[in-house]
Amino acid sequence: MDVTDRSPSLNGWRELIDGAEIGEIDEPIINVDRDDTREYDAIFIGGGAGGRFGSAYLRALGGRQLVIDKWPFLGGSCPHQACVPHHLFSEAARELDLARWMSGKLWFPEFEEKRASILEMVELFRAGRNTAHAFMNWQSKEQLGMEYILNAPATVIDAHTVEAAGERFSARNLVLATGATTRWPAIPGLDIPGVFDFAGLVEDLDYEPNRCVIIGGSKIALEYGSFFQATGCATTIVSRSPLMRTASLHHVDEDLRSYVVNGMRARGMTILEGAEPVEVVGNGRVTGVRVRLADGREEVLDTDFVFVGTGEQARSEPFVEALGVDIDERGSIVVDRRMQTSVPGVYAIGDLIGAPMEMFKARKCGMTAARNIMGEPYEFDFSEYPDFLHSTYEVTWVGLTEAEARERYENVIVIQMPPKGVEFEDLPLPCAEGTMIYAFTKPELTGFQKCVVDADSRRIVGAHHVGYGAKDAFQYIDFLIRRPQGLTIDDMAEMNELFLNPEHFIQLCRLRAGQRDVVDL
Amino acid sequence: MDVTDRSPSLNGWRELIDGAEIGEIDEPIINVDRDDTREYDAIFIGGGAGGRFGSAYLRALGGRQLVIDKWPFLGGSCPHQACVPHHLFSEAARELDLARWMSGKLWFPEFEEKRASILEMVELFRAGRNTAHAFMNWQSKEQLGMEYILNAPATVIDAHTVEAAGERFSARNLVLATGATTRWPAIPGLDIPGVFDFAGLVEDLDYEPNRCVIIGGSKIALEYGSFFQATGCATTIVSRSPLMRTASLHHVDEDLRSYVVNGMRARGMTILEGAEPVEVVGNGRVTGVRVRLADGREEVLDTDFVFVGTGEQARSEPFVEALGVDIDERGSIVVDRRMQTSVPGVYAIGDLIGAPMEMFKARKCGMTAARNIMGEPYEFDFSEYPDFLHSTYEVTWVGLTEAEARERYENVIVIQMPPKGVEFEDLPLPCAEGTMIYAFTKPELTGFQKCVVDADSRRIVGAHHVGYGAKDAFQYIDFLIRRPQGLTIDDMAEMNELFLNPEHFIQLCRLRAGQRDVVDL
Repeated sequence: MDVTDRSPSLNGWRELIDGAEIGEIDEPIINVDRDDTREYDAIFIGGGAGGRFGSAYLRALGGRQLVIDKWPFLGGSCPHQACVPHHLFSEAARELDLARWMSGKLWFPEFEEKRASILEMVELFRAGRNTAHAFMNWQSKEQLGMEYILNAPATVIDAHTVEAAGERFSARNLVLATGATTRWPAIPGLDIPGVFDFAGLVEDLDYEPNRCVIIGGSKIALEYGSFFQATGCATTIVSRSPLMRTASLHHVDEDLRSYVVNGMRARGMTILEGAEPVEVVGNGRVTGVRVRLADGREEVLDTDFVFVGTGEQARSEPFVEALGVDIDERGSIVVDRRMQTSVPGVYAIGDLIGAPMEMFKARKCGMTAARNIMGEPYEFDFSEYPDFLHSTYEVTWVGLTEAEARERYENVIVIQMPPKGVEFEDLPLPCAEGTMIYAFTKPELTGFQKCVVDADSRRIVGAHHVGYGAKDAFQYIDFLIRRPQGLTIDDMAEMNELFLNPEHFIQLCRLRAGQRDVVDL
Repeated sequence: MDVTDRSPSLNGWRELIDGAEIGEIDEPIINVDRDDTREYDAIFIGGGAGGRFGSAYLRALGGRQLVIDKWPFLGGSCPHQACVPHHLFSEAARELDLARWMSGKLWFPEFEEKRASILEMVELFRAGRNTAHAFMNWQSKEQLGMEYILNAPATVIDAHTVEAAGERFSARNLVLATGATTRWPAIPGLDIPGVFDFAGLVEDLDYEPNRCVIIGGSKIALEYGSFFQATGCATTIVSRSPLMRTASLHHVDEDLRSYVVNGMRARGMTILEGAEPVEVVGNGRVTGVRVRLADGREEVLDTDFVFVGTGEQARSEPFVEALGVDIDERGSIVVDRRMQTSVPGVYAIGDLIGAPMEMFKARKCGMTAARNIMGEPYEFDFSEYPDFLHSTYEVTWVGLTEAEARERYENVIVIQMPPKGVEFEDLPLPCAEGTMIYAFTKPELTGFQKCVVDADSRRIVGAHHVGYGAKDAFQYIDFLIRRPQGLTIDDMAEMNELFLNPEHFIQLCRLRAGQRDVVDL
């Protein structure tokens, strides 16, 4: 189906994608400008976060690109299986959490256990996700001027040639952007019905789980686990490492961690740290997970639902075979800071090059590849970045933990709420939008915040927050603390706060900024 | 009661303030260092936002201060009657709004009209507010080292002398910080029981209102009105000016305004613009408000509850009488950018010097006075600032509106969601935490965002958002756009977004940043 000379509306795109989903449309969707005789500067294999943003950027720079995706839409796994359902489920978790704590109080009715349904939320997501897909197809064509072939797998022929939709396309460069998939643990029983990863959950769930065992302690384990538990599905997390103390998460402050993990336990989750899954057992459907506990004992955890949250691995194999690109010991494609692989003219971006498998990295990798391809030398260092996850809360952090800062600087001070020594029960701070009802009913649920300051340079070197509504700010705090001059508590004292601000950093810093020798608050 | 040599715990302070509230403690609460023989650098009259932060800053600079407040706590009206109850009520409005739209769907039960009670929310606030007060007394003494006299009115004798708690105190300077109070309109009937302003509401409400008429169209009118309506109390706003198009709110973009006001109407509020209140009528309790409508007709709006949201005026009178300080035509004390009044050695800060009556201004005024008093020349210009209000949403903005930008710059582009020409019903963007459930059920409720860019300098000159969770970011966006170099879309392209971010600005700017000549998105 060639849409090049048509301009499907949002609804038109939605119908097209719906049709492809149910198999009514099984041909490629082609949007290629045959009148443009220029060679492609790049073909992007995969139109997810990295491929779409890289394509848009290359196009904005005046280059010519083609992006090819096996799915009938651009945007990739984020709106289809990953960030978007995760955010929908995390919002459900937050609202369910409030409804439980407030059960029978104020206008909140008695909370009915098992009224909330995981299956219903999954179905809600499935029914609506194509709207976002439609928008990305529309925007990419109408606003960004991109060329693309969708609903068609791409086969790499060589470093300049790709086959898709029965046609060969050539380009000065290739950009590989096919992402990652769950790294399944090496235990028996994962093929028994009732075992899901985040992708399988939204594609295949067709019954209502009553109990859940989560294998793995990744971000996704915390996020989906908090949602499952909030719906009333009793959830156990089986994790080798203590939660949030895994290699894949850096700069997790211990006070932040304990607030979050204690909060998950207070909501009824069972967290088995130092535990290993041994096998999934079942009988046409999973019935349990055998685990080896921290003390060496083995036990079968009864369950009708297993969720695997053990992290992801790059889909690099086809490119190793076709092009011989170098990969690392985890199977991720090796690139330099310009996103160039070991094969000249071939770039790789996003989850395909390994951790962190985050949106900002995928998109900026795409931008980086585009700039270099268009002749602008540009390097992207993603070793430091702001990070977040959801429990029933939004948990956000950037920069150093208190412990890391104390190792690096001689004179570290901490500005936090509640202050050290004050019990969470005694002080409903920090609070703001999202925690006001808790502030007046359950102060210990209002969250936690900490700002870590190198007292000598007066710079903020780390910021940490549990609550709601601060996440958006951390994008800008990250930018500010990375400036050559950094972000000092004196800068903070000059800012115009919007009170009540979820993280309270500005006014708290201002209370200390007058001091020549700043101390804890 | 002298607490100078005691260190009441948080709970100790709470008991003390509770005791003062019910009249058990009617003596002054004194925390004055009699061993310090230095003259006071300043006495702050009023320990609210400005007085407390000014005192803390002066103390941090090494000066000696005394703050005197008639209430038994520091912090002033914000935690007692203003920002804190407003945030609690606005959070209730948001949750009630969600519960109504989702009534009978997912896990949400059928919404019962009139289950939510304004009175119960007011009582919840009243029962809890002393906890925040206790913290501020504790923090101010234990962490900030301030001296204070509470539960005692201050009488100004001259520019260097104040009497409080039966004692005279002298200082090099006075800082006046007694705030503002409702500017009651000049109409009959405001003394009939059932007429409240924001302060009276939390102090005196003792029945459950069924219908509400709001006189005035200030921020407070929108905020409290949205809450009343959300509880099921049918609310009518009577406003001379169109809502959000009043002199007290600057830089309100028309698209932002119409999204917010249309949203209030969609939730059942009656908004009478161009209308004048004529009188409040009643019979031992209010029964109605006579209004003159935009077309000149008069009509009585039946109601059992009147809320006055006509703005505030400075409590300047005692200082005009005692010191002869100059005031402006609205009664606000006139100060220069150092917060100096017309009387040497006398400063005034916060709401007492007029609009904007916002937290950042009060606190930074206090800081400004403190710095100048301690010999550091420092000027504070608050003519530009980020601003926000609540409907059932968080509404936040900074910088220029699109229309203002088009007047000032030749080549303005706009990056917004939904894009111009796309219907709210067709696109659930922007969405993030707080609007995900709407995104999959009622896309038109997910909010609106707009970023205004001067295409020639590539600078962001305005940012506007309706939704949830972006407010905290606007504090930092304000700081960034005010830098000499401003904040360009190229800076945005370099940032590390935390996706899904409530305002989507970073990635949307990145989609355009590659262009030499940027265009709308």
